[in-house]
Amino acid sequence: MNPATPAFEGPVCPRPLDHQDQIVMGHGSGGRMSHDLIQRVFSAAFSNPALNQANDSARLTLPSGRIAVSTDCHIVAPLFFPGGDIGRLAVCGTVNDVAMSGAVPLYLTAGFILEEGLPIAVLERVVASMQAAAQEAGIQIVAGDTKVVEKGKADGLFITTAGVGWLPEGRQIGGELAAAGDQVLLSGPVGQHGMAVLAARGELGFQAEITSDVAPLNGLIQELLAAAPHTHVLRDPTRGGLATTLNEIAVQSQVSIRIDETAVPILPTVRTVCEMLGFDPLYVANEGKLIAIVPPEELPAALSALRAHPYGAQAAHIGTVQSQDPGRVLLRTQIGGTRLLDKLAGEMLPRIC
Amino acid sequence: MNPATPAFEGPVCPRPLDHQDQIVMGHGSGGRMSHDLIQRVFSAAFSNPALNQANDSARLTLPSGRIAVSTDCHIVAPLFFPGGDIGRLAVCGTVNDVAMSGAVPLYLTAGFILEEGLPIAVLERVVASMQAAAQEAGIQIVAGDTKVVEKGKADGLFITTAGVGWLPEGRQIGGELAAAGDQVLLSGPVGQHGMAVLAARGELGFQAEITSDVAPLNGLIQELLAAAPHTHVLRDPTRGGLATTLNEIAVQSQVSIRIDETAVPILPTVRTVCEMLGFDPLYVANEGKLIAIVPPEELPAALSALRAHPYGAQAAHIGTVQSQDPGRVLLRTQIGGTRLLDKLAGEMLPRIC
Repeated sequence: MNPATPAFEGPVCPRPLDHQDQIVMGHGSGGRMSHDLIQRVFSAAFSNPALNQANDSARLTLPSGRIAVSTDCHIVAPLFFPGGDIGRLAVCGTVNDVAMSGAVPLYLTAGFILEEGLPIAVLERVVASMQAAAQEAGIQIVAGDTKVVEKGKADGLFITTAGVGWLPEGRQIGGELAAAGDQVLLSGPVGQHGMAVLAARGELGFQAEITSDVAPLNGLIQELLAAAPHTHVLRDPTRGGLATTLNEIAVQSQVSIRIDETAVPILPTVRTVCEMLGFDPLYVANEGKLIAIVPPEELPAALSALRAHPYGAQAAHIGTVQSQDPGRVLLRTQIGGTRLLDKLAGEMLPRIC
Repeated sequence: MNPATPAFEGPVCPRPLDHQDQIVMGHGSGGRMSHDLIQRVFSAAFSNPALNQANDSARLTLPSGRIAVSTDCHIVAPLFFPGGDIGRLAVCGTVNDVAMSGAVPLYLTAGFILEEGLPIAVLERVVASMQAAAQEAGIQIVAGDTKVVEKGKADGLFITTAGVGWLPEGRQIGGELAAAGDQVLLSGPVGQHGMAVLAARGELGFQAEITSDVAPLNGLIQELLAAAPHTHVLRDPTRGGLATTLNEIAVQSQVSIRIDETAVPILPTVRTVCEMLGFDPLYVANEGKLIAIVPPEELPAALSALRAHPYGAQAAHIGTVQSQDPGRVLLRTQIGGTRLLDKLAGEMLPRIC
């Protein structure tokens, strides 16, 4: 009997029922099993008119043709950690990247690479978390794809999201727009996400109550831009942390950025754990923080707007932009000296996002 | 010495030079090594103004705010096969999905999940192939992401692409729009891609000269829509093959589709290999073919337009749409009988795209 015909499901070669709570290779076939998985797991959670069209691409409308697009792969291990999971991360990471251009994130696509044997209950939990994050961010997941690889050829679940946002007319925000005299704001304490994932691996050798900060920041940005419409730069300090992200901006804008170490908020637990392990929290990844660089006259309004939002309650004014030493980030240390704050070189914490 | 500071690269802990021809975990750090990899491999190949902005998202302009978006994960094994590779596949797969809605594909994002130890030469070859395919399709790769997982936690290289296309005013094409009386066209012979990948794995037990058909179809679609502007359905029969894709359309449009088996073009080598292995070519994946369903009055123009394009030279009229038996695909066999052509059930050929 031809294995490709419908008889594949028949009595000659029955589908093993006990596999139906795990991902099997057939879930990646593009045939009936793929269809069943999509209906059961993805369509149930993400239902919206664009996705429900069930065509090869989703048809969408934007107020105008100026858009911002971005993509992020997510490979975090473990899949669940205090404060979040790979699903929330996959939605927030891309929502934030789109929002950092000043665009209004509207639509997401999601590609799932599943390892054979993944419990479907795990996938359902991740997908529910994605939908909750999408709702919080006010965006829709409009297209997706699912592939399955053999056991041992992936690590449970990888998710790649891409996002599309609408860019309002006249909005000019970018890493190349920091100017001498601008002021540098940080929306809250740094280092939580990286340390939370490390703690979830049980690799600390001790207990630590650290929660990831993973969150969608588009709402916070909306408030910020209403208060400080001439914001020059928005950037989220993810992999490589605050120090690396500031370096990227300094190079793009050909300015120096001077940061006051004592002004950078760091939670006491994060500081303690980093000290014990020899990590510098300025290089640890965040997933719910942003750097905003604003002209000096908008500093007070920007800071107030950030602090008025739950995701910016601990926002701080951490530094200034100067024209000398272009491309460099300088840290005024606690003891009053100044040192060069370079970008992260190699790997510090693998698989954190 | 703090491993996160620039001294990481210094004499105390030199970066092992012999690793620089392979992917190492540091390439996923978001720091200097990530930056170097992006410059060396990705920016060099994909250079364009939107990508070169080097911001968290790419800022783009479309003629209007009607768009189509799609995403596809690519996990093909092996990475290279006769007629293509994972890079060409990743570009063409998403270009085609966007184009099947009648949209003009313009922009792609690409997310790379790399296994530690992947030779950078392999990555460069794949990226060059992506750029060649992007140029052929007339689209730009405007945003990307790279993550690295430990050796054994992925299989070399996975690529997830997402695409954005502009949807011209008034264009109505979708799987739900097939109507009784419509005619079904296929742009060329089926089964090449799946069999080419299988052959590349050396699993056939014999030599077979089969080349993948992987190709961007947006140019072909442009010619088709100029000749047959009232085309109702466009769909590419990828995973699950022609039979599964026709079933999806029959269900979406609540019609039956009747196909003449003798009219479906199949290359002799593909037919022979399928017969030897017990595969039905109607269920084997294609990556450079499309199904077009057009109103009867536009059939001659549509067929001529397809045949005038290199990717449609062997196009054929393979069937008709009828109102009775909604949701079913019926095959008139070579010997004159009629049988139900169901969708693919489980997995036939894993990891072909």
